[in-house]
Amino acid sequence: MRILILGAAGMVGRRLIERLLAEKTIAGEAITAIDAFDVVEPQIAAPEGVAIEAAAGDIADKATVEALVKKRPDMIFHLAAIVSGEAEADFDKGYRINQQGMSYLLEAIRAAGENYRPRLVFTSSIAVFGAPFEDKITDTFLAAPLTSYGTQKAICELLLNDYSRKGFVDGVGIRLPTIVVRPGKPNKAASSFFSGIIREPLAGEEAILPVADDVRHWVASPASAVEFLMHAATMDTDVLGARRCLTMPGLSVTIAEMIEALREVAGDAVVNRIRREPDAVIEKIVAGWPRDFDASRATSVGFSADKSFADIVRAHIADEAARG
Amino acid sequence: MRILILGAAGMVGRRLIERLLAEKTIAGEAITAIDAFDVVEPQIAAPEGVAIEAAAGDIADKATVEALVKKRPDMIFHLAAIVSGEAEADFDKGYRINQQGMSYLLEAIRAAGENYRPRLVFTSSIAVFGAPFEDKITDTFLAAPLTSYGTQKAICELLLNDYSRKGFVDGVGIRLPTIVVRPGKPNKAASSFFSGIIREPLAGEEAILPVADDVRHWVASPASAVEFLMHAATMDTDVLGARRCLTMPGLSVTIAEMIEALREVAGDAVVNRIRREPDAVIEKIVAGWPRDFDASRATSVGFSADKSFADIVRAHIADEAARG
Repeated sequence: MRILILGAAGMVGRRLIERLLAEKTIAGEAITAIDAFDVVEPQIAAPEGVAIEAAAGDIADKATVEALVKKRPDMIFHLAAIVSGEAEADFDKGYRINQQGMSYLLEAIRAAGENYRPRLVFTSSIAVFGAPFEDKITDTFLAAPLTSYGTQKAICELLLNDYSRKGFVDGVGIRLPTIVVRPGKPNKAASSFFSGIIREPLAGEEAILPVADDVRHWVASPASAVEFLMHAATMDTDVLGARRCLTMPGLSVTIAEMIEALREVAGDAVVNRIRREPDAVIEKIVAGWPRDFDASRATSVGFSADKSFADIVRAHIADEAARG
Repeated sequence: MRILILGAAGMVGRRLIERLLAEKTIAGEAITAIDAFDVVEPQIAAPEGVAIEAAAGDIADKATVEALVKKRPDMIFHLAAIVSGEAEADFDKGYRINQQGMSYLLEAIRAAGENYRPRLVFTSSIAVFGAPFEDKITDTFLAAPLTSYGTQKAICELLLNDYSRKGFVDGVGIRLPTIVVRPGKPNKAASSFFSGIIREPLAGEEAILPVADDVRHWVASPASAVEFLMHAATMDTDVLGARRCLTMPGLSVTIAEMIEALREVAGDAVVNRIRREPDAVIEKIVAGWPRDFDASRATSVGFSADKSFADIVRAHIADEAARG
């Protein structure tokens, strides 16, 4: 089993590779090779028995994508993307990386011919939805994004469905909740603060909260993101019919609830490191984001959510301790 | 007022031009020039005072589209498309004409700079929806097309929304019902028979009905299509917010109801020219199409439907008589 991972150097990509290397098999077959691709070369210590080919490049370069597909991976994880804030600021770059990259990938797979139909797991986003919303967004609610990032993800979903329907690829799109707590540094995503207000206080640092405490959001842990990917890679796709893209189950929590969970796990001194500094630009972007979902389609086919936000905080603390 | 019409040689395009030339003004301004573009050169007898520039070309050729936009039309009607049956049969051609053409158009408009923000009326289709459906599809139902044509239209809608949201264009997308009765010859659209079973019997010819009598469909007359375009071109778009694409109001009728309306208007002898010859391919495509809508968003902003199917049949007879 040869696996291609686009966006392999990102937080989710690195965790996915760790998991694949720990499992050693997927869908009942031995993992023999992993092609790890990103805009910066992924750093992976390869264990025995698995050939790791790490490479850096541009996913919106047609020849680059064709060369990756030419190795005929049995399974492809497409996690590469420009985040929402950057796609909004740089219109051309967003469409190039987030949409053109996917088009090249699908075309390269299709061009490989009838005997090649890999499983393609694509990470979409709840940013495909835009206000006004239903109270709980159901699986038949329209995609009406309010950002270019959300638009690009929605277009990729449509393409994934059509290429799957035509039999060119065996696609599954998973709309990830906002992943919290992301380790490391803040990124350019407008959602970056959702992790920051947990991560920075736990690390003894001040965190900026740019939105109101009653803002409600839809989140999942990094560990859940990897579970979603693994299930999407191995599930029976016949049950999906022509609708290959699913809203992943998450937790609907307010900022206040997140802060109370942090207090429960880590105490007042940690919570007091959160400083409220409203940011009109971020508030406006976040106001257009969905807050709660009925993700029953995904749960009916085997995806499952985190149990509580306190558990997510505890898992982050354990991860950081393991990392040293 | 300079107006660009892409797809000007088609049935709806020709009717739109007739209407514009009859009106002489639009949105309170004199129509001074019409650029009429299509894959075949549109034939238009120009009246005094309006400069008609008819041209044939490829809408999926970047330089061609840029040259059309360089004339800085104040209003653009984008009606050009490969029909559903052809887009399904020729995957590359469908994406090239139906999606790449729109991308080039939007990019050319954006590249023209901040002082240029034309009204762009785009004809989308109810083919953006795919089964399973709500009984009456509402304005917040997901776009889940079951054809490449529907996928391409849905992608164009997302792009139109995003480019409008960013202020590059002032877009309105109108999801046309199936237009019945189309004059002239059958075309490659899988929906062609919906017109054929009315048009051919009235012309003394046999018509093939490839689906069952209880098939329900969503239709509008050619005259309504032109009304929709005129209203989309002149309406206040502020009321649309970020959701620039609307399902147009239509009539939900079964084949049996259509046939009874034909009988009411034209009698048994005409109806008897319909021959039932089931076609599994067309039945499968049509089974994936929507049948009924709650188009209240469109009606709330001033679009209106045909009154009855018998009226549609009578209007077709009158049109044919006028044409001689």
